[in-house]
Amino acid sequence: MKLTLSEIASHVDGEVMGNSDCVIRGVSEIQDAKPHTITFLGNPLYRKYLIDTKADAIFVNNAKLLEDKNGIVVKNPQLAMAKTLALFSTKETEEPHIDPRSVISEGAIIGKSVTIESGVVIHSGVKIGDRCRIRANCVIEKDTILGIECVLNPNVSIYKNTILGDNVIIHSNTVIGCDGFGYVTVEDVHEKIPQEGNVIIGNNVEIGSNCAIDRGTIGSTIIGSMTKIDNLVHIAHNVKIGQGCLLTAGFAIAGSSEIGDYCTFAGQVGVAPHLKVGDRSIVASKSGITKSLKGNKVYAGFPAREIKDHNKREALISEVGRLRKKLDALIQANAED
Amino acid sequence: MKLTLSEIASHVDGEVMGNSDCVIRGVSEIQDAKPHTITFLGNPLYRKYLIDTKADAIFVNNAKLLEDKNGIVVKNPQLAMAKTLALFSTKETEEPHIDPRSVISEGAIIGKSVTIESGVVIHSGVKIGDRCRIRANCVIEKDTILGIECVLNPNVSIYKNTILGDNVIIHSNTVIGCDGFGYVTVEDVHEKIPQEGNVIIGNNVEIGSNCAIDRGTIGSTIIGSMTKIDNLVHIAHNVKIGQGCLLTAGFAIAGSSEIGDYCTFAGQVGVAPHLKVGDRSIVASKSGITKSLKGNKVYAGFPAREIKDHNKREALISEVGRLRKKLDALIQANAED
Amino acid sequence: MKLTLSEIASHVDGEVMGNSDCVIRGVSEIQDAKPHTITFLGNPLYRKYLIDTKADAIFVNNAKLLEDKNGIVVKNPQLAMAKTLALFSTKETEEPHIDPRSVISEGAIIGKSVTIESGVVIHSGVKIGDRCRIRANCVIEKDTILGIECVLNPNVSIYKNTILGDNVIIHSNTVIGCDGFGYVTVEDVHEKIPQEGNVIIGNNVEIGSNCAIDRGTIGSTIIGSMTKIDNLVHIAHNVKIGQGCLLTAGFAIAGSSEIGDYCTFAGQVGVAPHLKVGDRSIVASKSGITKSLKGNKVYAGFPAREIKDHNKREALISEVGRLRKKLDALIQANAED
Repeated sequence: MKLTLSEIASHVDGEVMGNSDCVIRGVSEIQDAKPHTITFLGNPLYRKYLIDTKADAIFVNNAKLLEDKNGIVVKNPQLAMAKTLALFSTKETEEPHIDPRSVISEGAIIGKSVTIESGVVIHSGVKIGDRCRIRANCVIEKDTILGIECVLNPNVSIYKNTILGDNVIIHSNTVIGCDGFGYVTVEDVHEKIPQEGNVIIGNNVEIGSNCAIDRGTIGSTIIGSMTKIDNLVHIAHNVKIGQGCLLTAGFAIAGSSEIGDYCTFAGQVGVAPHLKVGDRSIVASKSGITKSLKGNKVYAGFPAREIKDHNKREALISEVGRLRKKLDALIQANAED
Repeated sequence: MKLTLSEIASHVDGEVMGNSDCVIRGVSEIQDAKPHTITFLGNPLYRKYLIDTKADAIFVNNAKLLEDKNGIVVKNPQLAMAKTLALFSTKETEEPHIDPRSVISEGAIIGKSVTIESGVVIHSGVKIGDRCRIRANCVIEKDTILGIECVLNPNVSIYKNTILGDNVIIHSNTVIGCDGFGYVTVEDVHEKIPQEGNVIIGNNVEIGSNCAIDRGTIGSTIIGSMTKIDNLVHIAHNVKIGQGCLLTAGFAIAGSSEIGDYCTFAGQVGVAPHLKVGDRSIVASKSGITKSLKGNKVYAGFPAREIKDHNKREALISEVGRLRKKLDALIQANAED
Repeated sequence: MKLTLSEIASHVDGEVMGNSDCVIRGVSEIQDAKPHTITFLGNPLYRKYLIDTKADAIFVNNAKLLEDKNGIVVKNPQLAMAKTLALFSTKETEEPHIDPRSVISEGAIIGKSVTIESGVVIHSGVKIGDRCRIRANCVIEKDTILGIECVLNPNVSIYKNTILGDNVIIHSNTVIGCDGFGYVTVEDVHEKIPQEGNVIIGNNVEIGSNCAIDRGTIGSTIIGSMTKIDNLVHIAHNVKIGQGCLLTAGFAIAGSSEIGDYCTFAGQVGVAPHLKVGDRSIVASKSGITKSLKGNKVYAGFPAREIKDHNKREALISEVGRLRKKLDALIQANAED
């Protein structure tokens, strides 16, 4: 596939600088670009690679950055890159098909144009929406419901009664709806609390590989629409995650805690049980949230505080050496008096 | 299913307050309760929801909490809830069955009343105890032994020679018995140390989803009876975990370390190799254990210390600003002298 | 199988001390050894077990350690143990075989002497090198290439276009080549960035269980030859890991960061995106790397610093109490003047 710069510019609503007939055959990374591709300058860290890039054109948000190179000026170079990448991406021309080596219960309801690959096991009462693609060796236990256009990648396990919205993507070996970690301990015996709830996932949610999302003990664990979850994330029973959140790899949240809308958690953050984290919280990596947070702020540290307080506290440690010197000088001065 | 309050009270050994004929059809959460259900007040944080709860009855440990509502007074409301939930839970009336699309080696020994779902692969020399349920697409490699009434959820992988006790529950996509992370490095070459041991798991152990428990290099990795393990937990080669421990999500323990009995680890804790952690240790979330701990205490921080020492140390940081002010005032006073 | 001490000594290039005809039937751990085995003294922590060990012989690096016991003196007792363990290890005498209950696309190319177990799904365009062993229920998506002598353990998922070198071992339920966590957010809408790159893994790489390695967005995520990866490790899109690195359990690295050669990361370390970590960096457990590191040093803490600076900083906290006492004494002295 090949497109001219002007064709791409019109697709991304941008303005060509330089040769608008320049032929582009793909997208590449600025520091490792190939001829006949377009690249982008998103992160300013990568500006140093611009001068020597082998790409034939560059998406920028400011024409001056291009100097004498070909390019397209857009508001958001990363978005333009994403759209262009989609243009060039090998379309999955896959015909919907149900592999006869899958195991589909007679009591399951399968929508139109669904793909079910070999080794998939679908139990009774399951409903699969139109145009879903269930990759090899996934297991979907009874009474689970998938909306339309969901994709389950290989080896995903979904326990009973789970509800997925539309256009949910789940990556390989992730588990949805397993039992929560709930016991009542009486005289050193941990009695299992039956885990009778389920998991409800909204529309346009994407979940990475090797995640685990527990079912509710009673009631539901809920993941709001358009929330995106990275790999190796743990979500405990009865947690509620709002919409549009970003949960980065290694995030773990304990039982019954609630996260508002449009929150961002960097990697390896932990959240203690029974807390509330307000809308639009941004939480730095490795933070540990031990108290509820109001939201609309950036938090960091363990225990997590507003980042400005966290930074002050870190600075206090650095100050100890200076205090020691001042104090010793004063003691010395007093001694000399 | 429906039960009267007095029927439930007799099941949980409690005393009815209010209308003992009140009909209950299920259990719900206090903050989100439905009519005709019973709820419970366990965590005092949730007391604020009691006045407006729509539940028809409440388990409490003190009659006064009920004010004029129906309820059952019990010693342990959470335990009463768990027992009542079990009463109402949809019994798995599943008939034992072996799906012909499973792959069972001729050399495997399968007990009575066992369920083996489709896609399960069981190698030679494996013994499966009576009434085990092996869910779809699990793989059990050779010479592994399962006691009675074990449940393996979908896509679990168990390597050779693993020994599971009775009533062990393993959640989806967990791996038991994989090779430990063992190499000898000679002149920049990492030579693999053969991992020839196995994993031995006691009775009544439950293991969450997407965990990894390595086999011993020589000898065994051991998980004691009634230990409960959350999701995404890593247990390295030759680790010994005592009985009745609780290992919360994200816990990771390095090779050859030993944990005593009845220890509790909150989320994302790490344990360095070759350490011993004594019985009844309680370790706060995100702690990093770098030295052996005697046990019978609460520990926190990285490196993990007794929590009172950890808290003192945290307070020292807060004190730096006050010290600076006192010192500056003193310098000022001296200057004015 | 049994060997004399002198036979073992010649295999490991060591010198027998004591009875060279002593018969050895296996390898055991020093603190839990069985008669007729050889053990080793590697970690000095275990020296206390030497006197009472039931092993009939011991690998040591210094003859004096043996006192009057039988043993073999070698340069590296752990290496000698590894080699001897390999001697005794039950050879996999498995005949190569392709189970008819696997699903192999007609468009796949399978090398010689390959084992493919039941439930394995191999898509079109896949090439499997000679003598590979693909364990039960693995899924290999289209156009993926495996070199010779690779082992995929049960339930591994490999996405399309992945390239594995020779002698790569992947443990169960690990995922290679899943989509990176890439979105462009425009007015609260997270648009998915197509993930069009792949994963390239060198020779002699071993990857533990339940890991997730994302494909590149554009270009490749690269794992260098002889790098060894423990369980539950996350590697984001476009990361480059050099050769001979050791990544311990719980390690997580964010998008586009680069790790040099022969780096060692202890458990639960995190690396922020777009950083470079130089060759031969050694990073202590739970560290968080937030800036590029030059390498050839030991680092610790969060943010990660050279370990000597980290330790000084930790010592500053301990000093606060002493400063307070000195200051109070001085204030008291001034007051008494």
